[in-house]
Amino acid sequence: MRTIVAIGIGTGNPAHLTTQAIDAMRSLDIVLLLDKGTDTDDMRALRTNMLAEHRGGDLPEIVTIEDTPRDPELAKRDYRAAVAEWHERRANKISDVIREKLDDGGVAGFLVWGDPSLYDSTLRMLERVRETGQVFEVRSIPGIAAPMALCAAFAIPANRVGEPIHITTGRKLPGTAPELLRNCFVMLDGECAFRDVASEDTEIYWGAYLGDAREILIHGRVGDVGAEIAEARERARAEHGWIMDTYLLRAP
Amino acid sequence: MRTIVAIGIGTGNPAHLTTQAIDAMRSLDIVLLLDKGTDTDDMRALRTNMLAEHRGGDLPEIVTIEDTPRDPELAKRDYRAAVAEWHERRANKISDVIREKLDDGGVAGFLVWGDPSLYDSTLRMLERVRETGQVFEVRSIPGIAAPMALCAAFAIPANRVGEPIHITTGRKLPGTAPELLRNCFVMLDGECAFRDVASEDTEIYWGAYLGDAREILIHGRVGDVGAEIAEARERARAEHGWIMDTYLLRAP
Ligand SMILES: C[S@@+](CC[C@H](N)C(=O)[O-])C[C@H]1O[C@@H](n2cnc3c(N)ncnc32)[C@H](O)[C@@H]1O
Ligand SMILES: C[S@@+](CC[C@H](N)C(=O)[O-])C[C@H]1O[C@@H](n2cnc3c(N)ncnc32)[C@H](O)[C@@H]1O
Repeated sequence: MRTIVAIGIGTGNPAHLTTQAIDAMRSLDIVLLLDKGTDTDDMRALRTNMLAEHRGGDLPEIVTIEDTPRDPELAKRDYRAAVAEWHERRANKISDVIREKLDDGGVAGFLVWGDPSLYDSTLRMLERVRETGQVFEVRSIPGIAAPMALCAAFAIPANRVGEPIHITTGRKLPGTAPELLRNCFVMLDGECAFRDVASEDTEIYWGAYLGDAREILIHGRVGDVGAEIAEARERARAEHGWIMDTYLLRAP
Repeated sequence: MRTIVAIGIGTGNPAHLTTQAIDAMRSLDIVLLLDKGTDTDDMRALRTNMLAEHRGGDLPEIVTIEDTPRDPELAKRDYRAAVAEWHERRANKISDVIREKLDDGGVAGFLVWGDPSLYDSTLRMLERVRETGQVFEVRSIPGIAAPMALCAAFAIPANRVGEPIHITTGRKLPGTAPELLRNCFVMLDGECAFRDVASEDTEIYWGAYLGDAREILIHGRVGDVGAEIAEARERARAEHGWIMDTYLLRAP
């Protein structure tokens, strides 16, 4: 049997690796790397450094799978067909790599940002690869996710006593019921969507580049710090070329 | 300055410790342990074993703080007053321990189950200790939380593509809006509350004792496996004397 393991590596702080993730890195015969063209050099370097550090310099073969999202022509005519075509193309490529590079008993791994269960497509994609007829076991190794990294950076609880927690995306935030904004994490938000949704009195805990040297943390009432966050975000994105940020909204 | 650190230790699998948590354990001068009388011997043993393993047998002083919840007499007359009295009593005890046991520059730690931000009172309690006038820095170290451990055990994503995620308690589940049951984690549920809420067609991923040798995993439609889960839960609780379980509901 061959195994493919999705290893959660945390959101940028190498000390957030679990010993299970480290052991899994050591066990890999090959590392699979999807390259959408959106990964930054920093993110690539972090992964390579982690592998080198925990394998004493003995790097496994890293197989980069080019992952060109959708055919733009087809997407214009038929968006769903374009997405389906992309997913199928990707599954076939991965299936080919497994067949060519992985012996029986071999282990291939994806190093997944944060936790593999949270807004990540690796596990879903591996289901598709299975549908190509390729047989392998899938394992998932949990990692520190951005909401936990955010709370740790501020040393705050995620929830108020006994209350539910909501996790959503910048895109879905506008349709979110007001009572869910009491303990609401927002990820994948390129627009500071909180400005259209949160009351002035809502507390916001905002964190960017959590866990690395560029980390920025801002906390306050949206009325007081909302504009400051939007500015800090733009400035940092311009300076570093990319940004990853997450925030917690705590409505009164 | 003195430091108190809340160290997330994961939910039972010692391999879910991060290297940051391990380093923090090594740095501790004393370990603070709240004993509500509900911690099990297993949970105490796990903590002690982790400390021993990662400190090469050199155990720090473990200071157990008895944490007798509320005065039952007062609680009958005035519930809020009883809770306030309990919290104040606990804060004062911790404050005393810090004053007596921790030198300037010293580090005390709580080993917190899972992640310190998720349904845990340690960080909130430390705010109260500060209100007693005691001065110290608070740090929080993230840990693998039960929802992530559950998803990893099943090797599944938490969310469907782009959808929000809800995390709630057994107590709050009944009032939860149906659309939130699409990707809904339930914790702290002693009653299998899903039986009153989820449709027969809702998928459930249920996990108990995640990460240890007693782990039980059941997955299926609520209509098919709901009764089986309730029975497995009762049987395991009777056998082991306690149970911790978490589940994900995925409504159609
Ligand atoms: C595609 S999702 C992946 C999430 C990841 N699987 C996790 O568990 O956190 C990417 C989003 O995660 C959040 N994120 C990831 N890393 C982050 C970091 N270092 N600092 C702040 N936010 C981060 C941002 O909201 C970003 O848009
Ligand atoms: C007081 S909360 C603490 C949660 C913890 N801070 C975390 O991050 O997971 C306890 C609840 O967490 C869940 N839980 C904790 N450990 C678990 C385990 N090993 N297996 C299943 N559920 C667990 C259960 O729902 C339990 O009722």
